[in-house]
Amino acid sequence: MKKIIITGSTGFVGSNLAKFYLDKKKFKVHLIVRNNSDLSNIDSIKDLVELFLYDGKLENLIEFFQKVNPETVFHLASNFIAEHKSNEIDALIHSNITFGLHILEAMKVSEVKKMINTGTSWQHFNNDEYNPVCLYAATKQSFEALIEYYVQAEDFKVITLKLFDTYGETDTRPKLINLLNKFADEETELNMSPGEQIINLVHINDVCSAFDTAYKLLISLKQPSHFKYAVASEKSYQLKEIIKIFESVSNKKINVIWGGKPYRNREVMTLWNKGKKLPNWEAKIELVEGFNRYK
Amino acid sequence: MKKIIITGSTGFVGSNLAKFYLDKKKFKVHLIVRNNSDLSNIDSIKDLVELFLYDGKLENLIEFFQKVNPETVFHLASNFIAEHKSNEIDALIHSNITFGLHILEAMKVSEVKKMINTGTSWQHFNNDEYNPVCLYAATKQSFEALIEYYVQAEDFKVITLKLFDTYGETDTRPKLINLLNKFADEETELNMSPGEQIINLVHINDVCSAFDTAYKLLISLKQPSHFKYAVASEKSYQLKEIIKIFESVSNKKINVIWGGKPYRNREVMTLWNKGKKLPNWEAKIELVEGFNRYK
Repeated sequence: MKKIIITGSTGFVGSNLAKFYLDKKKFKVHLIVRNNSDLSNIDSIKDLVELFLYDGKLENLIEFFQKVNPETVFHLASNFIAEHKSNEIDALIHSNITFGLHILEAMKVSEVKKMINTGTSWQHFNNDEYNPVCLYAATKQSFEALIEYYVQAEDFKVITLKLFDTYGETDTRPKLINLLNKFADEETELNMSPGEQIINLVHINDVCSAFDTAYKLLISLKQPSHFKYAVASEKSYQLKEIIKIFESVSNKKINVIWGGKPYRNREVMTLWNKGKKLPNWEAKIELVEGFNRYK
Repeated sequence: MKKIIITGSTGFVGSNLAKFYLDKKKFKVHLIVRNNSDLSNIDSIKDLVELFLYDGKLENLIEFFQKVNPETVFHLASNFIAEHKSNEIDALIHSNITFGLHILEAMKVSEVKKMINTGTSWQHFNNDEYNPVCLYAATKQSFEALIEYYVQAEDFKVITLKLFDTYGETDTRPKLINLLNKFADEETELNMSPGEQIINLVHINDVCSAFDTAYKLLISLKQPSHFKYAVASEKSYQLKEIIKIFESVSNKKINVIWGGKPYRNREVMTLWNKGKKLPNWEAKIELVEGFNRYK
């Protein structure tokens, strides 16, 4: 049994990834959770995994890493805030920078040198090499700069997967598809922006297989390195088109008021398409099929 | 009187920069100091400046920025650790990332949009575009990624000066020149590495004029931007040569054991010379003159 550690496992992607590796029966899965984590997403697997409660203290994390001595760390923990307020700054730093750096340092001390890290296409506003959509995206870039030290000085091997929009029938986040399901066949009007922003949706099963593809690549690497790959479906859609497809698949009507609210400040209108694609992976679940799975 | 805020003013460079701007008589100088700062470097000017005690709370910093409403922030605060231990990680993050992000957010809220930031040539080990010598250097890069958000989303204008080695007669840090002064004409043997590393020393007066040159450039900028410039003397020397020059100028002998200790892990043997030079600035004080000022 290979030992892996997953952070962010109480979230949508992390909990699915934990189940994905449990299902393979070849992994001993350790999850790091926070004091204040909502554990409902991992309720069904909490007896099949080992849970470690991270209390913010590096020394305790180091002790845990030394005890477990995992082969690979899947670092998915993240505090996502699209438009931050000043009183959210400390939480952003703590979740997206400090916790990650604690993980890296605990890996160093315990001589664990393989990590799959999670980035975001939002690090690339306007299709730029680096232009953060929001401070959340900047903290992701900021953390990558810290990773580089461990790659260069401590011979780490790291792959960062840059995710786009993720969705799936187990998603409980108040994001687009759940919003559509909620408002389907309701008379309530759903105020939307003009709807011309381009969105790339990747089904959670494809996201999990991307992590596993990256994992297989990672353990085959001979040299210390930090590779960064985009995890996007072949096809992107305008928000307007996505809602049409949803209506067609679900045979329901959404009472959308287009332009009922303005675009968000720094709305992502065009998609980042300059990222290197994750080798040997493609998304298999097209939007129609993905939406069908919600039924 | 233009209002400026200087962070890191209890350090060698920061205290000299505060005096530099006080001497100009055209600036109202505000210094941000930490609870635990040693104030001895600013003892002589503490009645001529305004001191703000940063207690780690962003809301208090915002209130201070709103009250002062400075034109420009000189951000020099930094925790320098060449080879960190695990128990120094939190201090590194707090000083080099969190405090800086608090400054940026306080600037945003109070609509202050000009910053001179301080980086290091150590972000460029092996003359690479980015390769941090140590975790300290990585935190500098990490902070620059956060700055980028405020430039792109909040129209900040920022210039980062990448410093090399600084020195001067008011330097009290236990660094090379003070070490040489201490061991001059002593019988005690001074164990040194083999001494072939290349060092670029910039006298503190030249460093202050570099900040002022950058400041003038910054206030002339029309567009939001983040420019990064190297602040190096024309001439670099091997450590061995520097000690020879020191001996010759001081007419003293240092009892050096070359190779008495090994090079540091990731010792900077070659100098970063690919950085863009700060326009309209050059170091004027050559090493011989700089050493003469110690007399």
